[in-house]
Amino acid sequence: MNIYPELLETLIEYFKKLPGIGERTAERYALALIKLEKEDLKDFSVAIDKIDKTLRNCEICGHLTDQNTCSICTDENRNHNLICVVEDYKSIFMFEKTGKFGGVYHVLGGLISPIDGVNPDDLNISKLITRCKELNDAEVIIALRPTIEGDTTTLYINKVLNRENIKITRLSYGIPMGAELDYLDILTLERALYDRKEVA
Amino acid sequence: MNIYPELLETLIEYFKKLPGIGERTAERYALALIKLEKEDLKDFSVAIDKIDKTLRNCEICGHLTDQNTCSICTDENRNHNLICVVEDYKSIFMFEKTGKFGGVYHVLGGLISPIDGVNPDDLNISKLITRCKELNDAEVIIALRPTIEGDTTTLYINKVLNRENIKITRLSYGIPMGAELDYLDILTLERALYDRKEVA
Repeated sequence: MNIYPELLETLIEYFKKLPGIGERTAERYALALIKLEKEDLKDFSVAIDKIDKTLRNCEICGHLTDQNTCSICTDENRNHNLICVVEDYKSIFMFEKTGKFGGVYHVLGGLISPIDGVNPDDLNISKLITRCKELNDAEVIIALRPTIEGDTTTLYINKVLNRENIKITRLSYGIPMGAELDYLDILTLERALYDRKEVA
Repeated sequence: MNIYPELLETLIEYFKKLPGIGERTAERYALALIKLEKEDLKDFSVAIDKIDKTLRNCEICGHLTDQNTCSICTDENRNHNLICVVEDYKSIFMFEKTGKFGGVYHVLGGLISPIDGVNPDDLNISKLITRCKELNDAEVIIALRPTIEGDTTTLYINKVLNRENIKITRLSYGIPMGAELDYLDILTLERALYDRKEVA
C-alpha cells in the first residue's frame, strides 16, 4: 500500500525530476503545493502546460523567447556589432542580471566535445558565421566555461571567424571576487596570472 | 525590461511560493522544468490542476485522501480500537513510513493556542469524542508536538476523553523538544511510538 494518495505520488515524482531535489524535498514541495490557493494551482498548472507551446528559440540568436525573435535581438538600443557567444541561454540571463552588457548574444547550444560525440556541426555555429559576415567593425566576445571543451570551442570559433574586420575576445579568467587568495586552486591562480591587467 | 520571458517569470513566482525556495532556486527549477519532456509537462500540469478536485479530507479521521474515506480507515487489517491523534496529516505520512503502527488516526487540524485564537472548538475534537464513544477497550495515543500548545492540547483531550474503557497515552519524550514532527527522523519517531506513556 502506498503511503501517499496516488496524485501526491505523481507530484512527488515530477518534483524529483528537477535538479537537486531528492525524495524528502519532493515530498515537502508536493505537500506544500496542495496547500496553495485554488487559483494559484490553476495558474501554475496552466503555466506548466504552456511551456512547450509558448517558449521557443530566437531565430536570430537562439535565446529562449516567447516571440519569433527575442527582445534582445529586436532592441534597437543595443549594440548589434557586439556579439557575446554563450553555451546556452542560461548564461544570457546571468549577463543580463549584471546590467553591464549592451550588446547582443549568440547561443551555441553546447560545447565541442569529441568524447561525447559533439562536433562543431552539432552546434549553432554556422548561423554565427552568417551573422558576422554582415557586420563591420564588430567584436565577438566568447564567453564559455574554462574547461577543455570550452577552450576547444573558443579556439574553433576563433579560427572560423577570423577575418579582418572582426575582433575576437574571450572573458578573462581569474580570481573570483571576494575569494581568499590562499584557498584558490592553482589553475585559477595560474590563469589569473596569465590574464593579468595593467593597473590603470 | 524583464530578463525572463513572461511565462518563465510566472513559473518562478509559483516555485517561490513553496517552502524554502528563494529567487535563485526558483529560477533554477523553472529553467529545469522547461527542459522536461512534453509529456511530462502535460502530466505535471494535469496533476497540479487536479489537486483541489481530487484531494479531500477523510470523513472519518480527517486524513488526506482521494476517496471519501481514506485507505487507512477502510483497512480491516488495522486495529480500529487504537487511535493515534495527530496535529495534521503530514504526521500520518511519517508514522506510516515507520511501518510500526497498526492502528488508525485522527487529525486535529491544529493545536489549541489561545494566543493565536485557536480554541478547542476550532479543532476536529468533537468527532474524536464521537468515535471514542463507540469503542470499548480502546487506546488513544496522543502524538503532538512537545510544545506548550501540544501539551495543552494533549491535556485537554485527556480531560474530555477520560472515561473507563479508554486508555489515553501520549508519545514519550524521545522527541527532541521544539522539533517539527514532520521533519523528524523515522527511528526517533519509532522509539517515541514504542515508549509512549500513559497520561497521568
